[in-house]
Amino acid sequence: MRVIVAPSGFKECLEAPEVASAIAAGIRRVDPLATVDEVPLVDGGEGTARAMAAATGGRLVPVTVTGPVGRPVTAHLALLGGPGPRTAVVEMAAAAGLRLVPADARDPGATTTRGVGDLIRAALDEGARRILVGCGDSGTCDGGAGALQALGAHVRDSHGREIGLGGHALLDVSDVDPGGLDPRLREVEVLVACNPHNVLTGPRGVARVFGPQKGATPRQVEHLSAAMDRWAAVLHQRFGADLRRVPGGGASGGLGAGLAAALGARLVPRFEVLLPHLDLEGRLRHADLVVTAEGAIDAQTPRGKVPAEVARLAKRHGKPVIALAGTIGDGAQNTYASGIDAYTGILDAPLPLPEAIRRAPELLTDAAEHALRLILVGASLARTTSPSLDAGARRECVVVTP
Amino acid sequence: MRVIVAPSGFKECLEAPEVASAIAAGIRRVDPLATVDEVPLVDGGEGTARAMAAATGGRLVPVTVTGPVGRPVTAHLALLGGPGPRTAVVEMAAAAGLRLVPADARDPGATTTRGVGDLIRAALDEGARRILVGCGDSGTCDGGAGALQALGAHVRDSHGREIGLGGHALLDVSDVDPGGLDPRLREVEVLVACNPHNVLTGPRGVARVFGPQKGATPRQVEHLSAAMDRWAAVLHQRFGADLRRVPGGGASGGLGAGLAAALGARLVPRFEVLLPHLDLEGRLRHADLVVTAEGAIDAQTPRGKVPAEVARLAKRHGKPVIALAGTIGDGAQNTYASGIDAYTGILDAPLPLPEAIRRAPELLTDAAEHALRLILVGASLARTTSPSLDAGARRECVVVTP
Repeated sequence: MRVIVAPSGFKECLEAPEVASAIAAGIRRVDPLATVDEVPLVDGGEGTARAMAAATGGRLVPVTVTGPVGRPVTAHLALLGGPGPRTAVVEMAAAAGLRLVPADARDPGATTTRGVGDLIRAALDEGARRILVGCGDSGTCDGGAGALQALGAHVRDSHGREIGLGGHALLDVSDVDPGGLDPRLREVEVLVACNPHNVLTGPRGVARVFGPQKGATPRQVEHLSAAMDRWAAVLHQRFGADLRRVPGGGASGGLGAGLAAALGARLVPRFEVLLPHLDLEGRLRHADLVVTAEGAIDAQTPRGKVPAEVARLAKRHGKPVIALAGTIGDGAQNTYASGIDAYTGILDAPLPLPEAIRRAPELLTDAAEHALRLILVGASLARTTSPSLDAGARRECVVVTP
Repeated sequence: MRVIVAPSGFKECLEAPEVASAIAAGIRRVDPLATVDEVPLVDGGEGTARAMAAATGGRLVPVTVTGPVGRPVTAHLALLGGPGPRTAVVEMAAAAGLRLVPADARDPGATTTRGVGDLIRAALDEGARRILVGCGDSGTCDGGAGALQALGAHVRDSHGREIGLGGHALLDVSDVDPGGLDPRLREVEVLVACNPHNVLTGPRGVARVFGPQKGATPRQVEHLSAAMDRWAAVLHQRFGADLRRVPGGGASGGLGAGLAAALGARLVPRFEVLLPHLDLEGRLRHADLVVTAEGAIDAQTPRGKVPAEVARLAKRHGKPVIALAGTIGDGAQNTYASGIDAYTGILDAPLPLPEAIRRAPELLTDAAEHALRLILVGASLARTTSPSLDAGARRECVVVTP
């Protein structure tokens, strides 16, 4: 049996490569001769640069940048291996991630993406011809204004003064002057790998959807939302592009919109730009079974999460997909429509979250074993049983609708 | 597809019929046209009389008896429907169960099986020709002495006095006089449905294995263990049978040994005597798949628990068996050797035990759905995939060894 194991990392618990190897161990317990191809997946957020460098035989370059609260942090970018133009991966979370914001400073109105601009400049210094900006796990909501400033643009308030750090400063923004931008940017392709469900403004805009989890109070959310409206208007006026509802414009606190408007960056669904480097689709073609996983499977999963994306690709090639999850939340059954044929939880007893996190590798291995044994029960049923089972099994497609 | 759902109850959570119907609902979600045959199973303990009456079209008879701490309780026996000799089920837990012992009185040296004798006498009054005594969930450790006294036997200490309630009194037992036993007992068949792993004395004797969970302190366990030794010696002397290590002699705090010695009751593995009334084997023959369940699956499961027993029967007919469990404990993999092909936990998130108990029906339904979907993935794989999968699947038999 040939199995592709293509999981996400489990947030605040395990990186994707650890998840993949735990699952692979469970599969080999049942079938020691199985061919198990581990393809740890990343979504643009934390761990993306490291994983992409590893998958392509590239390398990481450490860079000291301005962190999200204005103090220097050591970030990194990836220079990918493989054919094609010299490509750098800038993981925004490495320079401006929520993890870099101290708990007592979690105010997305005050944090900046300046470090992302620093990383992009470092990528230029490394001779990159193509820069992939990975979004996700951000701790900012400044519309990318800080990144543009770091790259040489001037972002000014109504008095003509350079604005300070953070999204709240955009409440008074009145112009962006791209004249000082690093001229090398004109020679490179910048792709922003983003979740296309994230938009800049409106009721599903980035301030309202992600502000609270970045630490904004309800009042701050309203201010940030107004700031994004104003930022969108200024970008529109200066660059002629209305980015308010453009898919991905809200990525990483509006970083997508800022880079798209001022640098001409393309906002690309994250898996479209990341997965080709991992050759997931090519490897899928040879699989009998695809196993994916994420910390949670719920109503959000079909909105651009790893398991749904893997399933979508797998279904192009008619491959069955199962998913393992630490938590199966409300709306998980919506994932069937994304091409996930079956999912299952990994817990083996009632236990508190910290213990589940501590035992995650072991739980994943056991759950993969249990799932594969159930699959083998089905395989043996299909070989030995009456035609009625076939009928039952085929009905699956009919009754799967959520 | 034809599915037999044959679960145990989940202790302190759900009765077996509720478990069965929750699982059946999950199966029908995936395959609305599946034939689902619910066979809630009992193990002789709590709920046995009720379930056996329901399964056979019989009835329950309420009986007021002496409870385990000497106060009257309302118990019941079952008169079974169906062909054959008039059969009564005496569930010992209904008269002397742990649940009937107040928390502050949990001393198995002081509790009595008198009420079990009361129920047996009531069964005689109802004209039973065959009495099945269900063991399990007992709160006693009196070797059945109380039951024998209630039926007319005299159990005397070294001074020739009738001993009092409870197992500690047996430390000074010196004789049993069966002369006063109800004469109708000579005309009926008494079968004790017990777990054959329970023995009366020794390091795996009932006082040592079950004393602590019935509330005995380590010191009380030693006393009870000595009391069982003495009781065994007295029974041996009087009735000529050495019951110390007889399988099932330790059932329900030694009730098995007492009834076997003094009444000539047969100690029968519980499922051998209970299952024929439920026709599990006959119904298994027509199944494609067998689903069983218990609150926990662990190293104890192969030692006579419902899932292992169901699997053993199913394997006689070559039927695949899957098991669902609230907790998968240490040694669960030993159950593969009992014929369970696959098992899986039912939890969908890290949560505390009380919440798991509260949500158990929903969790069981979801888990049954998830398991069946995995099985259908396997069935479709077997139909569509390369021969290598078949090879992998068949290897299952080779690598299953624990």
